[in-house]
Amino acid sequence: MGHKKIRTALTVDLDKPAWEQPGLHNRWHPDVPACGKIANNEVVKIECLDWTGGQIKNNDSADDVKNVDLTQIHYLSGPFEIETAEPGDVLLVEIQDVQPFEDHPWGFTGIFDKNNGGGFLDEIYPKAAKAIWDFEGIFCSSRHIPHVRFAGLIHPGILGCAPSAEILAEWNRREGELIAASTHLQRDVAKPPEPKNAHAGSADETLKAKIAREGARTIPGRPEHGGNCDIKNLSRGSKVYLPVHVPGAKFSVGDLHFSQGDGEISFCGAIEMAGVITLKFTVLKGGMAKMRMRSPIFHPGPVEPQFGPGRYLTFEGFSVDENGKQHYLDATVAYRQTCLRVIEYLRRYGYDDYQIYLLLSCAPVQGHIAGLVDIPNACTTLGVPMDIFDFDIRPEGDVVQLDMGSCAFESE
Amino acid sequence: MGHKKIRTALTVDLDKPAWEQPGLHNRWHPDVPACGKIANNEVVKIECLDWTGGQIKNNDSADDVKNVDLTQIHYLSGPFEIETAEPGDVLLVEIQDVQPFEDHPWGFTGIFDKNNGGGFLDEIYPKAAKAIWDFEGIFCSSRHIPHVRFAGLIHPGILGCAPSAEILAEWNRREGELIAASTHLQRDVAKPPEPKNAHAGSADETLKAKIAREGARTIPGRPEHGGNCDIKNLSRGSKVYLPVHVPGAKFSVGDLHFSQGDGEISFCGAIEMAGVITLKFTVLKGGMAKMRMRSPIFHPGPVEPQFGPGRYLTFEGFSVDENGKQHYLDATVAYRQTCLRVIEYLRRYGYDDYQIYLLLSCAPVQGHIAGLVDIPNACTTLGVPMDIFDFDIRPEGDVVQLDMGSCAFESE
Amino acid sequence: MGHKKIRTALTVDLDKPAWEQPGLHNRWHPDVPACGKIANNEVVKIECLDWTGGQIKNNDSADDVKNVDLTQIHYLSGPFEIETAEPGDVLLVEIQDVQPFEDHPWGFTGIFDKNNGGGFLDEIYPKAAKAIWDFEGIFCSSRHIPHVRFAGLIHPGILGCAPSAEILAEWNRREGELIAASTHLQRDVAKPPEPKNAHAGSADETLKAKIAREGARTIPGRPEHGGNCDIKNLSRGSKVYLPVHVPGAKFSVGDLHFSQGDGEISFCGAIEMAGVITLKFTVLKGGMAKMRMRSPIFHPGPVEPQFGPGRYLTFEGFSVDENGKQHYLDATVAYRQTCLRVIEYLRRYGYDDYQIYLLLSCAPVQGHIAGLVDIPNACTTLGVPMDIFDFDIRPEGDVVQLDMGSCAFESE
Amino acid sequence: MGHKKIRTALTVDLDKPAWEQPGLHNRWHPDVPACGKIANNEVVKIECLDWTGGQIKNNDSADDVKNVDLTQIHYLSGPFEIETAEPGDVLLVEIQDVQPFEDHPWGFTGIFDKNNGGGFLDEIYPKAAKAIWDFEGIFCSSRHIPHVRFAGLIHPGILGCAPSAEILAEWNRREGELIAASTHLQRDVAKPPEPKNAHAGSADETLKAKIAREGARTIPGRPEHGGNCDIKNLSRGSKVYLPVHVPGAKFSVGDLHFSQGDGEISFCGAIEMAGVITLKFTVLKGGMAKMRMRSPIFHPGPVEPQFGPGRYLTFEGFSVDENGKQHYLDATVAYRQTCLRVIEYLRRYGYDDYQIYLLLSCAPVQGHIAGLVDIPNACTTLGVPMDIFDFDIRPEGDVVQLDMGSCAFESE
Repeated sequence: MGHKKIRTALTVDLDKPAWEQPGLHNRWHPDVPACGKIANNEVVKIECLDWTGGQIKNNDSADDVKNVDLTQIHYLSGPFEIETAEPGDVLLVEIQDVQPFEDHPWGFTGIFDKNNGGGFLDEIYPKAAKAIWDFEGIFCSSRHIPHVRFAGLIHPGILGCAPSAEILAEWNRREGELIAASTHLQRDVAKPPEPKNAHAGSADETLKAKIAREGARTIPGRPEHGGNCDIKNLSRGSKVYLPVHVPGAKFSVGDLHFSQGDGEISFCGAIEMAGVITLKFTVLKGGMAKMRMRSPIFHPGPVEPQFGPGRYLTFEGFSVDENGKQHYLDATVAYRQTCLRVIEYLRRYGYDDYQIYLLLSCAPVQGHIAGLVDIPNACTTLGVPMDIFDFDIRPEGDVVQLDMGSCAFESE
Repeated sequence: MGHKKIRTALTVDLDKPAWEQPGLHNRWHPDVPACGKIANNEVVKIECLDWTGGQIKNNDSADDVKNVDLTQIHYLSGPFEIETAEPGDVLLVEIQDVQPFEDHPWGFTGIFDKNNGGGFLDEIYPKAAKAIWDFEGIFCSSRHIPHVRFAGLIHPGILGCAPSAEILAEWNRREGELIAASTHLQRDVAKPPEPKNAHAGSADETLKAKIAREGARTIPGRPEHGGNCDIKNLSRGSKVYLPVHVPGAKFSVGDLHFSQGDGEISFCGAIEMAGVITLKFTVLKGGMAKMRMRSPIFHPGPVEPQFGPGRYLTFEGFSVDENGKQHYLDATVAYRQTCLRVIEYLRRYGYDDYQIYLLLSCAPVQGHIAGLVDIPNACTTLGVPMDIFDFDIRPEGDVVQLDMGSCAFESE
Repeated sequence: MGHKKIRTALTVDLDKPAWEQPGLHNRWHPDVPACGKIANNEVVKIECLDWTGGQIKNNDSADDVKNVDLTQIHYLSGPFEIETAEPGDVLLVEIQDVQPFEDHPWGFTGIFDKNNGGGFLDEIYPKAAKAIWDFEGIFCSSRHIPHVRFAGLIHPGILGCAPSAEILAEWNRREGELIAASTHLQRDVAKPPEPKNAHAGSADETLKAKIAREGARTIPGRPEHGGNCDIKNLSRGSKVYLPVHVPGAKFSVGDLHFSQGDGEISFCGAIEMAGVITLKFTVLKGGMAKMRMRSPIFHPGPVEPQFGPGRYLTFEGFSVDENGKQHYLDATVAYRQTCLRVIEYLRRYGYDDYQIYLLLSCAPVQGHIAGLVDIPNACTTLGVPMDIFDFDIRPEGDVVQLDMGSCAFESE
Repeated sequence: MGHKKIRTALTVDLDKPAWEQPGLHNRWHPDVPACGKIANNEVVKIECLDWTGGQIKNNDSADDVKNVDLTQIHYLSGPFEIETAEPGDVLLVEIQDVQPFEDHPWGFTGIFDKNNGGGFLDEIYPKAAKAIWDFEGIFCSSRHIPHVRFAGLIHPGILGCAPSAEILAEWNRREGELIAASTHLQRDVAKPPEPKNAHAGSADETLKAKIAREGARTIPGRPEHGGNCDIKNLSRGSKVYLPVHVPGAKFSVGDLHFSQGDGEISFCGAIEMAGVITLKFTVLKGGMAKMRMRSPIFHPGPVEPQFGPGRYLTFEGFSVDENGKQHYLDATVAYRQTCLRVIEYLRRYGYDDYQIYLLLSCAPVQGHIAGLVDIPNACTTLGVPMDIFDFDIRPEGDVVQLDMGSCAFESE
């Protein structure tokens, strides 16, 4: 009859440590025990913690961000066994809704300290900072970034099926090689398996030790299964096609975002939140071969916030870095320059650079690859929707400095 | 009274060599003589050659692409002296229309030979290839890529004001340093000044020699003035804010595109055409300081083709290359992988890889930076509008192989 | 601090008769006692019954629709006293969210029997019929109208402030005059005050009798305050500006719709549901004079489902009725013809006319006034989004008849 | 090879009287001789006069509008014989482009005098008035309505195939009956055949006399063939499906509009222009039966100007007229009230009512049927895109009166 309430496949407890909840885990490994079964074609709700597992608080200090424990993050909900799914199938996941918890109508955006996590602009902005966002229905605003308000482009940062043992070994090989080859650099280039604070769901001690030793960290997305892709357009109504690598698929989801900009540049850059996601699962038998699939594909949903193309103010950046050094077709360098151009522009209204850095991380900005072939310069663009501001940011307009207050910072 | 025909500020002759036309030039240099004056607030039409200056023909062989002379390209229309413009001003250019010539309703997309120009995927697809596109009003289709048809997102690939002598020196310094540091690589990483085939407009021999010796090549866009940005959204109705570096601005424009995808991946990747652009010029006095401008900014126009977000099929790619090597947050590597995922997928309908490579270069595909902070993987996405095909490309649909013919190739 | 749960200003009980709930009422009258206070600038949630007060059930018979008691409908939530609002002010209401109840994920669309309510096409389709819609996140589908699925354009059918005594008298005058002048017609042309089943909230018996005697019925929208406008675009994120006619505004809301097409043609034509609406109230002092306001105005929200303009199949209708009679610039006749054209077209896929009539009532179809001046014909259009069907409805496509089952009908 | 210039199937001469040009006609009749042949699947350009045949001039007096000769209007280009088209077929017409003549970059919007043509609001605004619009690429602006500028939604007001003799007879019957039944009204309700100034293309005198006597006037659209539908969304890229009633279809087109609002309320309400339309013709054999077609259907094109839903300010109107009289579900009355609400609102910025009346006629405003079933009130809405103004029209904004000059008026 179809008039039943949708089943909740996993409930989380915001008041209990994540590591005590057997339906959560924070490593990718084929052996993490399933926390439940979901039928083919079933629709379920799944509750999720925020990606820090509750470490960040609704207050006006960024000390919690500065001191965040990055071995404790990304407690994913799952894995769920999807009935009939086998390796080589494709799991079609339709994101039917994403909502914050009704009694928890807020989220946060953070800039990590350069020495604990860092971010895309940490050479320039090394301090920890934070903005708290209040949700009012589909909108959000922040006391830490005044004169801005927008509709969320709500989505999960992480979803994917478990890797097979072979894929996991490949991840550890190639990321290990990068680490080994990068010892001369001043920074972490990847996160190897880390037994500390590994949470393997309901695994017994022996299994947990194995998972802790071998399990892939959840920070990067990876081509074979997706994972932490941080694709802002996986919002309500999206369909995602995921490769299946283990029997039952072992699907996990987490890291819900109320909104995010392309690039999620401050690392803790989305509006991070706890909440509930409604998903429909359909197994497409033999889909990987049929679709020639090597990485997930998707359709965005039909209800993204719409601004009209003429309502974006768009900035350009090139692969010449802030020291005047020319890089060869490097889109990463170009995008960093593009972000800096926006910061320089918006600063004139009275915002602190950290406020803008936070805003570019979480507002629905459009980051595009423009040109990647005109040697030596890559060109990227970043479109800022003007209608998220309650004042006129058009270049022709008068510039009036407003009282922009401050975001939260770490203590001196 | 306003009912006059808009003035044409420059006429080009498609039947005459570009280098014989004094209103064209193919180097960026402050001393290229102005070919005309445009008043502040004036609207004019400017005619432009295609970016190869007519080297590519409407036929079914890619030998012209293979043998293209890259010292002869980018004959820009201009430079124009904009009255009242001074260094430090911003030149607001509104793109009021772009049209192909009425008696020249076709364009081309090319893949350069790896040994003469190359492109984003030349390690995998080294041969020259070509597609000719026929224009029917706002639409285009190609006998070389059947079952595809779409509305153009028409725009200029290149526009910008002349560099000052200081800026030009800086370009030559930093690009020279890159070349010097890259001698171990197997490929050109930048294009230094090249006297051969330099065209300096109406310059006399002495001046021409100087410009030929010092003038910056037009291939890359550059942060200080824009240039060859290849931004597909600079279409009808866009407003571009350009920094002014020399008295009179010395504005040039060219390289018109009937359509282009984000990245313009095959290098000669847009639908290249000759045609006419209608521009309005407004000088914003002291604009660079007011806008804190270090690179151009713009608003896209209001009439881009609209597909609806749910009508894109979107692919993901990560910074793990085709040999399984892990790169560190490299968006360029990620975008290359994303393109390869699309080729693998569309291949199943009967297209040759070169046809898809051409199509991704010129159709209005959306290339986004998704995540750039989740070490070690950058993630990019590429959205393909499904409605450009006359068959169903949804993953759930049946796969029927169609007769896809062939694009034009170089002779064996 | 802003991290509090949003206050629920009114709770309804789906299991208790509407007339026993003092926070509901079903007549417009200035004297209905306020059921609560809301502060200026406050955000609250308000729960609402479906517009029939629960008379329609989730089953496969339309007998409940046939026998609906139309004196028992539109139990509105309210009225709420908005602090500081005075006559002449404008009440800005921002619709921050609308959701069905989590444990009630379904709604209904009905066609009333011609002898009990009727509808826009009741001369042709006189029988009662019904479709039940199941909600899956932002999407809905119906076992009674197969092969259709779409994202809701969720909104309240009714919202407005109470009329003043003068305005109420004017309503009763002019609608009474229409009734008096239309006695020769075969049908109800308006609904005069009706004491039977009037519900006046917490009014005492004396007051209730007055309200029952004088109170305006809730069926029509009216220019002075809005009311039952059935504007499908008043969805999430919309801002509505409402005239205030009595101290405290006495705002009421109800008749939530999961989706509706322009015209809501079957009268019970939206996807009617019970649920909760999140509203923010702001009093604009003296707004009526400032805005020259005689009827409400609004901005739609930014997150409507987007299909792309080329994804609509659009039908035309003119003011020549089905008997070949020419009417003079009558947009109502034209729109009826437009609807009939769609029914004729979609019938070819196997749908019963009643199924299409239901679908046109509730799906997000676009009904436009095209021409209203070319005597004697008015022309209207109706755009049907093709992507709500899981088969191809384009005119060029092959027509394959599908098993379309049946909607619910009244018993013989 | 496809690189030929598109054929121009008809050239018009703007400097010669329309009635001397054999490729034009101004009556619908099956016997108007074809002015040319077009092949199935052919693309052609067709030149068109403006709908008044050049009667309106680019000046600052509306005397030409006041004295317009309405027997001389709508000189249509055609009829064209479409090869292979037979009665019962459907003619698919793709509108590939519409452009004003390059040396005629202007158009006009007029309000007719109540005694010569009138318009939707002529009871309130009886004087003739006019605005001249200058075209700058895709944009237009008017010296008669300052502070407004927008991209055109360019389209043909009229297109259709010739009626059969039977259909023509039916038109004359039913419109004649309306005229006969309306003699008590103070105004023309339809336009019967009128021999004066009939132009029958290349017909000889005998045939011309017959056509003049029987031919249907071109003012109204009619369900059987479309004609003067004035549908603003038939813009670039639209596909129109037209019923064929005579051998060869006898297709005609004219009345080009640079832009128009829903309703085209001032009658001469679009931005009327002369220009050229590019059309592709495809005959769908037996299409009328297959599509159950009784009136044309269409798909809008993909490149309409996009404002974003939240960028419309939307007004409501109901079927209570300006005298307080209640009408029964009359959408025409409701739409008139909606228009008046916009005039009242925009007046506060300094515009004269006639300027707003002109603007609502020609700017891309969205007129929707909202509710048509809530007796006795029809409700319609009118959405005004805020971004066409260069000042802020949001209700919350400050109201600053600007110097709005004046539109052109008739002499006293």
